[in-house]
Order: sequence, then C-alpha cells, then structure tokens
Amino acid sequence: MSLAAGRGGVASARGFSVGIGEAGIRESGGPDLVLIESDRPASAAATFTTNLMRAAPVLLAEEALADTGGGARGIIVNAGCANAGTGAGGLDDARAVVAAAADHLGCEPYEVLPASTGLIGSRLPVRQIVDAIGGLRLRRSATASGRAARAIMTTDTRPKQHAASVRLGDGRTVTIGGMAKGAGMIHPQMATMLAFLTTDAPIGSASLRTLLGPIVDRTFNQVSIDGDTSTNDAVIVLANGAVGGPALDAADQRTFADMLEAACRALAVAIAADGEGARHLIEVTVHGAASDADARAVARTVAASSLVKTAVHGADPNWGRIAAAAGRSGARLDPERIRIHIGPVPVYDGNPLPFDEAHARRVLRGRTVPLVLDLLDGEGSGTAWGCDLSAEYVAINSEYTT
Amino acid sequence: MSLAAGRGGVASARGFSVGIGEAGIRESGGPDLVLIESDRPASAAATFTTNLMRAAPVLLAEEALADTGGGARGIIVNAGCANAGTGAGGLDDARAVVAAAADHLGCEPYEVLPASTGLIGSRLPVRQIVDAIGGLRLRRSATASGRAARAIMTTDTRPKQHAASVRLGDGRTVTIGGMAKGAGMIHPQMATMLAFLTTDAPIGSASLRTLLGPIVDRTFNQVSIDGDTSTNDAVIVLANGAVGGPALDAADQRTFADMLEAACRALAVAIAADGEGARHLIEVTVHGAASDADARAVARTVAASSLVKTAVHGADPNWGRIAAAAGRSGARLDPERIRIHIGPVPVYDGNPLPFDEAHARRVLRGRTVPLVLDLLDGEGSGTAWGCDLSAEYVAINSEYTT
Repeated sequence: MSLAAGRGGVASARGFSVGIGEAGIRESGGPDLVLIESDRPASAAATFTTNLMRAAPVLLAEEALADTGGGARGIIVNAGCANAGTGAGGLDDARAVVAAAADHLGCEPYEVLPASTGLIGSRLPVRQIVDAIGGLRLRRSATASGRAARAIMTTDTRPKQHAASVRLGDGRTVTIGGMAKGAGMIHPQMATMLAFLTTDAPIGSASLRTLLGPIVDRTFNQVSIDGDTSTNDAVIVLANGAVGGPALDAADQRTFADMLEAACRALAVAIAADGEGARHLIEVTVHGAASDADARAVARTVAASSLVKTAVHGADPNWGRIAAAAGRSGARLDPERIRIHIGPVPVYDGNPLPFDEAHARRVLRGRTVPLVLDLLDGEGSGTAWGCDLSAEYVAINSEYTT
Repeated sequence: MSLAAGRGGVASARGFSVGIGEAGIRESGGPDLVLIESDRPASAAATFTTNLMRAAPVLLAEEALADTGGGARGIIVNAGCANAGTGAGGLDDARAVVAAAADHLGCEPYEVLPASTGLIGSRLPVRQIVDAIGGLRLRRSATASGRAARAIMTTDTRPKQHAASVRLGDGRTVTIGGMAKGAGMIHPQMATMLAFLTTDAPIGSASLRTLLGPIVDRTFNQVSIDGDTSTNDAVIVLANGAVGGPALDAADQRTFADMLEAACRALAVAIAADGEGARHLIEVTVHGAASDADARAVARTVAASSLVKTAVHGADPNWGRIAAAAGRSGARLDPERIRIHIGPVPVYDGNPLPFDEAHARRVLRGRTVPLVLDLLDGEGSGTAWGCDLSAEYVAINSEYTT
C-alpha cells in the first residue's frame, strides 16, 4: 500500500521530524536551512559524489559515518552555498554548523550529517546559520515535509518528494519517505543532486549499505541533466526502526529493498523531469545487453547525448543519433543486431526501417519520451532518465549574475 | 618556413591533386564529392572513430589499409550522407563508389580509401556518385584545394585548411597540406570530424602510423563540440615521397613529426572554433599533472563541460565550474593544490582567491578564451579545445527538417 501522492515526504516515517529555517544564505531570501531528526539513533548509509573536488560537508559526513560505523541522529542541509572549494576554512565552517545542530538535537556532532548545495567557492555565513538552527522547531507533518523539500530547491521548479508504506510478512507496516533536489544552478552556479530518505524499518547499517549501493546505481546514478557531476552530490538514508520489533529478516529485507528502490527511482525520475529548461522527460530502456552494467551504460549515454536531447526538443525522430550514442557508450554491442524503438515505433533493426514518422513525432512531443533499445546479446537490462536540451538551459546557465 | 595562410591545402604537396564534383547527395545542392589523388603509391596511415556503430566507409577504409599494409593512391569523400547504420547494403554502396574512383585513377579498389559525412541511416545515391566520379577533373592548385575544403563542409561556417613546408637536414623541402570538416549537422543530423593530410615527404607507412597515433591523441582527440562521437570520424594521412631522395632519417622524422603535429593542431583548433553556434574558442591548458594522459583528460573534461561552456557564453568568471569539471575528469588531482587561471587572472589556489572580476570578464569575452590549470603534481601537460554552448547550438540541432 502506498500513501497518497504529495501527502508525505522526509518526515513521514515514524520517529522522524523536520525543522525549516531561514538563515539568509540565499541572496533571494526564503527558507534555506533544513534539519532532519530521528528521535532515536538510526542506521545510516550514504553514497557521495565521485568528484575529487569534494565539498567540506561531503568530507565531514563521510568521516562521521566512518566514526560511527553507520549511525546518525540527524541531517543538516543548507541551500545557497555549496561550501566547496573553500579549503580548511570551509571544513571549520561545516564543523561549526554540525556542532550547533548536534547541540539543538542533544546528540554528539558525529551523529549529524551535513549537506550543502549552492555556489562553489563562497563561505557559509556560519553565525547566521548557528543562530537559525537555535530557533528551529521540529515537526512531523506532511506540511513540514513539503516545506523542507521546497527549502532545499535551487533552480528546481517544483519540490520532489515521495512516501510509501509496505506490509511486512509479520504484519508490521513500514514507511519510507524522501525528498530530493535536482541539478540546477543558483544564479548560474554549480548545482547538486541531494536526496534524503528516512524509514522506520528496523535494519542495521551494514544491511542498509549493502542495499543502497546497487539501488543508487540503478536510479540516481542513471540520471543526467547536463553531464556535470557536482562536488556535493549525496544520497543519505536513515533507518530508525521506530516501527518496533525485530530487525528485518531476509524476506522482509527484499520487500524493503523494493520499496527503497521505488522511492529512489521516483525521486530520480522527478529530478530528470525537472532538469533546467526541460520540457520532456527522456526515459531510455535497454534490454538484451551482455550485462546490466552494459545496459545501464548504453541507456545513460543515450539519455545524456546532446544530440539526442536536441532531437527530442525538436521532435525529430532522428534515430541515427540514438544509434551513434549507443555505439560510443563503451558497452558491447553488435551494430547489425541492435533494435531501436521510439516509443512503440520500430526504427532500426540492424538496417533502417521504413516507419510512420508522424507517429514517432507524436511520441517525441509527449511529456515523457520512451526510447527503447534491444541489443539482442544477453540478459542485461537497465534504464536511464534525462531531459531535452533547450535554449532555456543555455539562458539559465549563461546569464551573468556574479 | 610556412606557406602563406589560406594559400594551400590538400593539394599543396608535390604529386597530389584533387577533383571536386556535384553528385546531388546534398539536398541543398552544390559540390559534395571530393577525390584526392596521389600520382604515385603513397604510404597511408589513419585513425578512425572508436564508436562501435561504424559507418560503411570506415569499415572499408580499415580493411583496405590492412590489405595493403598501409598504402593508397587516393581518397574518395562525400558529404550529405554518412552511409552509417545502413547494414550490408551500405557496404555494397561504398564498394561501388570505391570501384568507380579506382577506375578513374587507374588503380586497384583497395588503393582508394572512402570517407563519408552527413545523414545517418540513408543510402548513398550510388549511380549519381559513380556518374559524377567519371567526370571529375583532377587539379593541383590552391583554388582546387580550397574548393575541396568547401565541398566537404556540412554546418561548418568556413572551410578548414592548412599547408606548411619545412627544410630537412639535407636541404630538401617537404610540404604538408590538409583539410578538415568539423562537428556539425546536416539538417540536424549526426556529423563527422574528417581530416585529410597529404605530404610529399618520403616516409614508410609503419613510421607514419607510429607518428600519427600520439599526434591525433594530442590534437583531434582533444577537441569537443558537444561530446557526441560520430560514426564516421576519420583522420587520414598520405605521404607519397614526391620530394624525391631517400626516406627520412630519424632527425628528419622528428622535424616532419613537428610539422605534422602543427598541421593537425591547426585543423583541430579550426574545428573547435567553428563549433555549431559558437562565438568563442575555449583553449584549456593543464600543467603539473601526474602524466600527459591525466593532463589531457582534465583539459578535455573542462573544455567539454556544459557548465563551463555556458559560463564562457555568459562571460561569467565562474571558476567553481572549472574546478568541478577537473574533479570529475578521472585524473589524479589534489583539490588543495590545484591552481586555476582565467587567462592571466589567478582565481583559485586550493582556496578561493580575490580577483579582478572585470578583468576576468574581459578575458571571457575574447574570441579565444584561455583557461589554465596547474595541478602541481608532476610533469604532465596537455591542451584541449572546445567552444561555448549557445542557444544557436540548440536551434541548429532541434529544428525539425526530416
């Protein structure tokens, strides 16, 4: 069973609450600070950016997770400043923010995970943030979840949330909630993919970590807006076991993993659909690859291709661009065997096919554009999500504002 | 010594001539067929696209070079149709075109290398091409070279040629000439990077191959317009020894390699500067990397970043995007050591630097925008070339025309 859409988010699972504040970090004003709290120690697992220019909050969160072996009481998030490229001073700033959040929650600093998004190279206004944290009121409501999802937005045009519940084998109902922000710029600055998920399921951090890695590979890591990996990307899951009872057994872990993957996929798709300047969500599904990794590589390369993105923008059924992107993906494929469909319309099967162009154009004009490739080479499959490339993307990212 | 700019091209070296024809392959009409001839057997070396969806002419040219061990009498090039994604029929088409060219030159089919650029997935109008080849008149003049460079253009806005001569140790003067076409679309179709170089230097095909690979890695492979690798990319060098005398000795090979690299660099830079919708050439130079390969990877990633490209388009000195691109390049780097300059303006040295924003903006408004990174980690260096990303790029590639 799922909660009604839009009715839940990061404070939906039992024992989680959220506080929203305004610390004056954003030039445009408005809420820019979010504190997520678990009322008891939670298992924590996370994946962070592979960019070597890692932001101070990424370094600190990773250090904290190593110190605790995968536990946390809260997450402190700010928009408006990425605290990246800020050297040792930036690390000190992040530590001060974390200390204030831990003080507010009554826990140790290593139990609070920091995350930031916004301008690279500028310093956090630490005093303002510490003051704002002191005044945060923690609430558990759909309204508070929704406000939190708005507070972490940059050039996102809409908040991204997801909540769902599932009944376990022993009758317990566990809930997951989450929010994410997409790849956009604050006054054309580097952006960040952030996602935070909370669940009341009882699951140890080692199991949570084991589940999270492959799920992130199939969901968040399959989204591309513009091919630029941020310095601040982070996906953090907290599981506090507030549902009560024993830890999930193997069967329930599979049920939970399905729910976690559905939540990650929903947030990942929402990020792609809200890419800067985008009018279309591009969903590329690949079957018949030598491996799932190969299928994901093909899907990702097609979804991220500037030429595919502009073709979708112009509703041009230009399958040659799809074929060419597949061919440079690094995955194994046989050009004489692969099949390409634009939605339901077959366009290539090793040779160009005559096809109904008007039908293909209608598919390309849809809000969601499904592209399907079958490599006829194995059992591997995978999906990736992207968006069209528009003149608005260029405008958003080249307008001068520094 | 160099020939005057614009005075030479692919038919500048002794013993080479070129014919230009109109086969009606382009919808827009105009010359679309070029035959390059060496009046004697030439050593040949080539590099082709790494895309697995390789076009028929690429497969055929590679086969011919394997058959001859690296020799050729000519190159037959067409614009308007890539002959890619065309299956076995496309290979037959390419063979028929090559046979007609070989017949016209009085040589064997395996001595003629084919190359195509244009629409993926459509078939060559073979009969028209064979007829046009029969009527080609081969000439050796600067005018003919220039017309050939124009005939292979797609959305290129200007022809790209280069010619130079150099005096060897024994007093002989050898000449190199070349032409290239850039990454653009024909009525938004996948494009191709093609470059053809001819020289009268006496050098065997094994030596020529040994020289060409690393030079292409430092020049053509360091250019990105939109990150999409074509199905048809090809760089072909013919060396016919028409200058006479013995084969180049080791010292003269070094002299020749420098001239070859300068020619490849000139054509590669011309391609980047003429990227679709581009107003600026972005030249990214990286010093102090652990290896040349690492330096080239950093330079290439920065030059190809959509965020760097839009920042240059908007004259925004947003060095965080440069740092973030460097951090995801896969190369080894220490975020606390790297230094970034926008032209002469230092902006980052492990910490953000105060800098003259007006000065940096002036640099970004120049026709050529130099970005310099020093990783302070070794002796590796490299350069890459790209262009800004503009709304015109989106318009060129999303306009519907099929």
